[in-house]
Amino acid sequence: MSDDVVEKTKKTGALYFKGVEEEKPFELWRSFDQALGKDLSLFITGKLYAREKIAHPTRQLVTVAVLTVLNRPEELKLHILAALNVGCTPDEIAEVIFQTFTYGGIPTVNTALKVLREVLKEKGLWPMDG
Amino acid sequence: MSDDVVEKTKKTGALYFKGVEEEKPFELWRSFDQALGKDLSLFITGKLYAREKIAHPTRQLVTVAVLTVLNRPEELKLHILAALNVGCTPDEIAEVIFQTFTYGGIPTVNTALKVLREVLKEKGLWPMDG
Amino acid sequence: MSDDVVEKTKKTGALYFKGVEEEKPFELWRSFDQALGKDLSLFITGKLYAREKIAHPTRQLVTVAVLTVLNRPEELKLHILAALNVGCTPDEIAEVIFQTFTYGGIPTVNTALKVLREVLKEKGLWPMDG
Amino acid sequence: MSDDVVEKTKKTGALYFKGVEEEKPFELWRSFDQALGKDLSLFITGKLYAREKIAHPTRQLVTVAVLTVLNRPEELKLHILAALNVGCTPDEIAEVIFQTFTYGGIPTVNTALKVLREVLKEKGLWPMDG
Amino acid sequence: MSDDVVEKTKKTGALYFKGVEEEKPFELWRSFDQALGKDLSLFITGKLYAREKIAHPTRQLVTVAVLTVLNRPEELKLHILAALNVGCTPDEIAEVIFQTFTYGGIPTVNTALKVLREVLKEKGLWPMDG
Amino acid sequence: MSDDVVEKTKKTGALYFKGVEEEKPFELWRSFDQALGKDLSLFITGKLYAREKIAHPTRQLVTVAVLTVLNRPEELKLHILAALNVGCTPDEIAEVIFQTFTYGGIPTVNTALKVLREVLKEKGLWPMDG
Repeated sequence: MSDDVVEKTKKTGALYFKGVEEEKPFELWRSFDQALGKDLSLFITGKLYAREKIAHPTRQLVTVAVLTVLNRPEELKLHILAALNVGCTPDEIAEVIFQTFTYGGIPTVNTALKVLREVLKEKGLWPMDG
Repeated sequence: MSDDVVEKTKKTGALYFKGVEEEKPFELWRSFDQALGKDLSLFITGKLYAREKIAHPTRQLVTVAVLTVLNRPEELKLHILAALNVGCTPDEIAEVIFQTFTYGGIPTVNTALKVLREVLKEKGLWPMDG
Repeated sequence: MSDDVVEKTKKTGALYFKGVEEEKPFELWRSFDQALGKDLSLFITGKLYAREKIAHPTRQLVTVAVLTVLNRPEELKLHILAALNVGCTPDEIAEVIFQTFTYGGIPTVNTALKVLREVLKEKGLWPMDG
Repeated sequence: MSDDVVEKTKKTGALYFKGVEEEKPFELWRSFDQALGKDLSLFITGKLYAREKIAHPTRQLVTVAVLTVLNRPEELKLHILAALNVGCTPDEIAEVIFQTFTYGGIPTVNTALKVLREVLKEKGLWPMDG
Repeated sequence: MSDDVVEKTKKTGALYFKGVEEEKPFELWRSFDQALGKDLSLFITGKLYAREKIAHPTRQLVTVAVLTVLNRPEELKLHILAALNVGCTPDEIAEVIFQTFTYGGIPTVNTALKVLREVLKEKGLWPMDG
Repeated sequence: MSDDVVEKTKKTGALYFKGVEEEKPFELWRSFDQALGKDLSLFITGKLYAREKIAHPTRQLVTVAVLTVLNRPEELKLHILAALNVGCTPDEIAEVIFQTFTYGGIPTVNTALKVLREVLKEKGLWPMDG
């Protein structure tokens, strides 16, 4: 990988996960395999996420919705934090979670709303302005 | 339902599915049950999709991504058409499909890209400007 | 929505969730958005669940089976309680969970059986008469 | 396996798949492995489906719902035929498919309704009496 | 079932779950229904797992990978223990979990790696030799 | 990427997909985006698949099983061809497909067996020696 990719990986990772205290995926990967963990970071963060074809807030709303219907609450928590970090409002995040009802059903909406509520409470942003 | 909801349902439905020749979901539902089909349309289109908390192009990119990871190619085709109708570019649609790789894996990306390519060919928009 | 739908929503909701102490989905939705939460309740409970084409016990066995294969244990707990409330026996509930093995595999059966056992213990109905 | 299980397997299989022209799963399995195919039939049909804890029509409605949310249209077609064979009405089958919207989302409902409509057309039962 | 199947069931079960302290699936099934629990054990363990067409270590790596993408962490824990019991190394188990990224996405990889790390810690096998 | 990764990507790709006439994923990706398609190939094939921690036949059996339970028949066809290319026998491939029944249910087994049978017919390897 060129220095450029390393740079983009660091910059994008910092943007998304600033202030996140949970174990980040790249820390988990590296605890098993340093080289593979680095390759995964450089590829996912530096090659895919760093692309500029859509704005970061849109990208994060997409990720929140996808993690909702796939029912991955731990990963979802990380990306709700990332969504807030790139400027999405709690209201927009709730909206895309509700939107997924039509496609993925209500149980995963409920799980995702609980994760969102927990994050907002931790950040002192709850209750939302109705 | 109030007249207002009926109105919003018609307006939003027209915006999304203008020029779509495939059987629309509400036509399918009504072929089984007129009253239930109407209730579903008014709820999904008039109550959920007509909300204005996020812009239509963002909403459609979210839907495209969600239908990709859930592997629903028929429904996806309808919403790629809707995404183009509300102003998303082929490039943005391709980008959110690629983005889902990280969360849902590559096979559903491949299926979704084939649906997108088929739609773009039907509309004379293929090949995309690289 | 007409008064009739509001009435059906209340009646069906009371029938299903009588004595349930967990947070109900409509309480969760309303904590985010009063109006949308109300719309979701009226639609799901008043428009879909209140339909009389199949009996409530059959409907609840269907729901238990669907939530088993989708692996949604929290939502499943609510509907095992609802199934007992409308007259399904523990034996019938266990039977449809076991039945799903053929279609959804054994791990989700195991998770669902554990939820059922937990509910039966809370209600003093465990062990079941074998 | 005892003769009793063989007998139950034949009887239950005949009840469900009478008049079904599609390749049945046990025919597929045996084309690969005679002994394993027989074991699978005896177990699934003779040991699980032949149990009498719930009535066959309830069991088939459960199966239809489960195959809908799992999005297995080929297997679903076989079990819509089986549901009709054990006395479920087209109306009841449609109802449980619609019911799954709340838990599994609308795209799989749409796919299942199309399968049901196709079966009903083949049997001269379409359109349904609304 | 013949004595032979009973024998194979015991032998294969002992091989896989030697030293496993978690509740085994067959214990859970029998707590609900003795006869059905026995039928399930004899079929799954004695008829399917005891087949000798592929070696046990390969079979367990396959199971680990399948449980990873299906996101079934409790069942996965049992089969990571079984994989170690039949001679798979921690390195090989980690490798097939990482391999599933391409097909099932990274969130289920992360969940599975955490389960693996927890098992290895319990067994005093962590950190792995890198 | 270093020349080494490019080399490994070519070598591994050639090993797996020798004689495969279907459109390969990397061809699909590149029809949308040359640079991203190349990055994906180098990462998936050159960085992940080229790792030598497990043997290619084991890796392909794992992939076949994973694609079976995820119900991705198009991608599965490619990897059944790859499995044959690296020396897996039809019997071993069928065995891991059958094995997934316990975890993912029978409908996806049935779909995968049909794909396998189709491939074996195309290659003049059907019927298998029972």
